[in-house]
Amino acid sequence: MGMTMTQKILAAHAGLDSVVAGQLIKAKLDMVLGNDITSPVAIKEFEKVGLDKVFDGNKIAIVPDHFTPNKDIKSAEQVKVCREFSKKMGIVNFFEVGQMGVEHALLPEKGLVVPGDVVIGADSHTCTYGALGAFSTGIGSTDMAAGMATGEAWFKVPEAIKFVLTGKPQKWVGGKDVILHIIGMIGVDGALYKSMEFTGDGVSALSMDDRFAMANMAIEAGGKNGIFQVDEKTLEYVKEHSERAFEVFKADEDAVYCQVFEIDLASIRPTVAFPHLPENARTIDNVGDVKIDQVVIGSCTNGRIEDMRVAAEVLKGKKVHADVRCIIIPATQKIWKQAMNEGLFDIFIEAGAAVSTPTCGPCLGGHMGILAKGERAVATTNRNFVGRMGHPESEVYLAGPAIAAASAIAGKIAGPHQI
Amino acid sequence: MGMTMTQKILAAHAGLDSVVAGQLIKAKLDMVLGNDITSPVAIKEFEKVGLDKVFDGNKIAIVPDHFTPNKDIKSAEQVKVCREFSKKMGIVNFFEVGQMGVEHALLPEKGLVVPGDVVIGADSHTCTYGALGAFSTGIGSTDMAAGMATGEAWFKVPEAIKFVLTGKPQKWVGGKDVILHIIGMIGVDGALYKSMEFTGDGVSALSMDDRFAMANMAIEAGGKNGIFQVDEKTLEYVKEHSERAFEVFKADEDAVYCQVFEIDLASIRPTVAFPHLPENARTIDNVGDVKIDQVVIGSCTNGRIEDMRVAAEVLKGKKVHADVRCIIIPATQKIWKQAMNEGLFDIFIEAGAAVSTPTCGPCLGGHMGILAKGERAVATTNRNFVGRMGHPESEVYLAGPAIAAASAIAGKIAGPHQI
Repeated sequence: MGMTMTQKILAAHAGLDSVVAGQLIKAKLDMVLGNDITSPVAIKEFEKVGLDKVFDGNKIAIVPDHFTPNKDIKSAEQVKVCREFSKKMGIVNFFEVGQMGVEHALLPEKGLVVPGDVVIGADSHTCTYGALGAFSTGIGSTDMAAGMATGEAWFKVPEAIKFVLTGKPQKWVGGKDVILHIIGMIGVDGALYKSMEFTGDGVSALSMDDRFAMANMAIEAGGKNGIFQVDEKTLEYVKEHSERAFEVFKADEDAVYCQVFEIDLASIRPTVAFPHLPENARTIDNVGDVKIDQVVIGSCTNGRIEDMRVAAEVLKGKKVHADVRCIIIPATQKIWKQAMNEGLFDIFIEAGAAVSTPTCGPCLGGHMGILAKGERAVATTNRNFVGRMGHPESEVYLAGPAIAAASAIAGKIAGPHQI
Repeated sequence: MGMTMTQKILAAHAGLDSVVAGQLIKAKLDMVLGNDITSPVAIKEFEKVGLDKVFDGNKIAIVPDHFTPNKDIKSAEQVKVCREFSKKMGIVNFFEVGQMGVEHALLPEKGLVVPGDVVIGADSHTCTYGALGAFSTGIGSTDMAAGMATGEAWFKVPEAIKFVLTGKPQKWVGGKDVILHIIGMIGVDGALYKSMEFTGDGVSALSMDDRFAMANMAIEAGGKNGIFQVDEKTLEYVKEHSERAFEVFKADEDAVYCQVFEIDLASIRPTVAFPHLPENARTIDNVGDVKIDQVVIGSCTNGRIEDMRVAAEVLKGKKVHADVRCIIIPATQKIWKQAMNEGLFDIFIEAGAAVSTPTCGPCLGGHMGILAKGERAVATTNRNFVGRMGHPESEVYLAGPAIAAASAIAGKIAGPHQI
C-alpha cells in the first residue's frame, strides 16, 4: 500500500520498508527542541531519572523565546536552568538573548532542519518545519526528556488529509489567509491526529514564508503535522541555510488519504479569524465594524521577512491610529537586521509603531503587549483562545500582516484596500 | 540675602521677591508628570475626592514607560486607567506605545520642559530636568493628584550644595562617571533635601546628555533637585526642542551654600558603583575581577543618543561575550530612530546585542532583562539596591555606556581600554 510523505519519512526513520496509519513505531530523531517554558520541565525529568548525558549535543536545540528578554525573576530562573543544562550537556544550539529568535523561525534559518527530518519539539507549533518537507510535531516535556536521552521517540503513524493547491493567491493574500481559510473550512479538530499534506501546482505560488505560516498552524486544525511537497523553492531555501545532507520524500501515487481537498488559491480572500477560535474565519468582506486597541505583527507564524515587507508596504507613509498600539516583532535577530537594512523600520517608526527585539511575547500572553479587560487586538499570531493575549475578557483577531497593518491604521479591522 | 538658582526659580513661581532655605512656599507648576505606576494611584486619589477637571490639560504629562509595552494584565489595566483619564481630562501629553519613551528622556525631547520651569513628577528621577536649568523634583502620587487639580504645590525651599566644575573630562568619561564620583564622595544622603547646583567653567565641557545623566542622579545623593547653570548648549538644546518662552535664573553672587565642592573633571576616571548602593563608587582601575551575566544600556539616566554612540564606538567590530546578554534600550522612539539611522544598530546587532523598544524595563526590575539568583549585571541605570533588577541575590553594577559596553565584550567588568 502506498505511503504519504509523512509515512515515508517515519518509515525511513524507523528502519522499516513501510508503515501504515495507526501503526506504532519508534523513529530516530534528527532534532529535539525545547523553549524556556518546556525545557526546564524536561530537564527536571531528565535529571530526576539520573540521566547524565544527551544522545547528541548537536541534535538538541534550546531556545529561550517565550518570556525573553527575561520578563521576571521566574522566567530568568527558567532560562538559567536551560543555560546551565546546555553548557553541562554540550548542547551547542542554545540561543542567548542577542543571538536568538522565536524558535520556529530560528531553526530553519540556522539550517537545523532539512527536508526528510524527524523533529520533535516541546512546543505545539513545532509542526512549522513541515514547510521544508520534514516531519515535525509538538510533544510534551517528558517526551522531550526521553528524546534528549535516547534520540528516539514513539509515534502512532498518522493518516493524512491531502490538500491539492491550485492557482495563485491574489495580492494581499498570504499563507496565513490560506491556512485560516482551511481551518475555517475543516474546523479546529478537522485534522485531529492527521497529517495535513500540501501538494499541487499551487504550492509553487507560495513563498517559503507562506508555507512556514501554513505548516505552523496545522496544529490549529488538530493536525499531527503539516507538510509540503519539496520543490525548487524548498531546495533553494535549504541550500542557502544548511550544509546538511538530506533526502526528499515524495508521497506514493497510490498513497491513501482519508480526505482530499482541492483549493484554488486564487479564490481565497484576505481572512480574519474571530474570537475565540482559529476556525471562526471570515473574509475581510464580512468583518463588520470592529474597533481595535492593539496590533501585533510577529510570532512563529508571521514574524518573517516577507511579513515585515508586507506590513511596511501597507504602513508606508501612513500613521498608526491614535487609539492603537502597533507592536512589530521580527522573529529573529537576522530578520530584525534585514528588515532594518531594507528600510522597513524607518517606515514602522515613522508610522508610529514600536519595534521589539525578537520574542514570542504577546502571542501567548507572555509580555510585550498584554491586553487589558475589554481590549481587542488584531494579531498575526496563531491562537485566539479566551485570554490568550491577556485579560479573559480581551479578544484576539487572527490575520496576516496585510490586514494587521491596515487595521493599525484604520483603528478597526480593515484590509489594505480600505485605508 | 542672595538666592541660589533653585531659590530664584521657586521665588518667582511663588510670586515672592525672595525666599530663604527652610521657608514653606506654594509655587505654580509648569508641568505635572506621572507614569504607569504612579499615575493610576494619583488618578484614584483625584477621583476619590470628586474632582472632575485638571488645572491645565497642556501642563500634565502621563507617560506609560515602566511596564510598557504592557508586560502583563495588571500593567495593561494600569495603562488603561491612564489612557482613559487622559482622554476624559484633555491631557494632550499622554504618550502611547509607538510614540513614547522613557519619561525623563521624552519630556525634554518633546520640549515640555524649559529653563526656569517648576516641574513635579511622581517619579523620583524627575530631577533630570535640572539639566535644563529648571527646578524639578520627584513627589508622591497624592501630590501629583493635587498638582493636577490645582496647578500648584507646596515646597520647603531647599538649601544648596554648590559644585564648581572645572576642566574637561578624559576620553570615556561622561556625566555618569562624574555623578557616580560625586555620590561616592558625598554618599547617598550627602545632599539630603538639598539642591545640587552645578556651575563653573567645566559645565561647558559637558554635553546636554552628560548633564541629564548627572541631574537625573541627584536623587541618588538624596538631593531635592539637581540643577545646572544655563549656557549656550542649554539654549541651543531648548531652541531645537521647544517653542515655549522661558526665563533663565542665575544664582546671586552672594547666594548662600551649605557646602561648596570644586571638581576637576579631568581628574575623574571611568567609574563603577558596586552593589548595593550608588555611593559604592570605584574607578575602573580598582574593580578587580567581576564576572557578569548581563549588560543593560539604557534608562532615563543613559539611554540618550550620545550613550548609544559611545556604546557603538566600543562595540564596533567586537562580539558580546558568549556568557553575557547585552540589552540596549534607546530611551525614546526618536533616539531609537536616530541611533538606527546613524548605523549604530548595525554595530549592536553584529556584536550580538539585543535592541529593545523604549521602556524603563530592567532598571526597576520591571521586565526586559530581569536577573536570576546570583546573576550580575553592569547597567547604565541609576539604582543598584538589593533586588533592583530581579532576584534579591542578584547584583547590579552602575556605570556609563563605555564601561557597560566594554564589560559586555569582556564578560567581566572592564573599561574600553581593557578590551
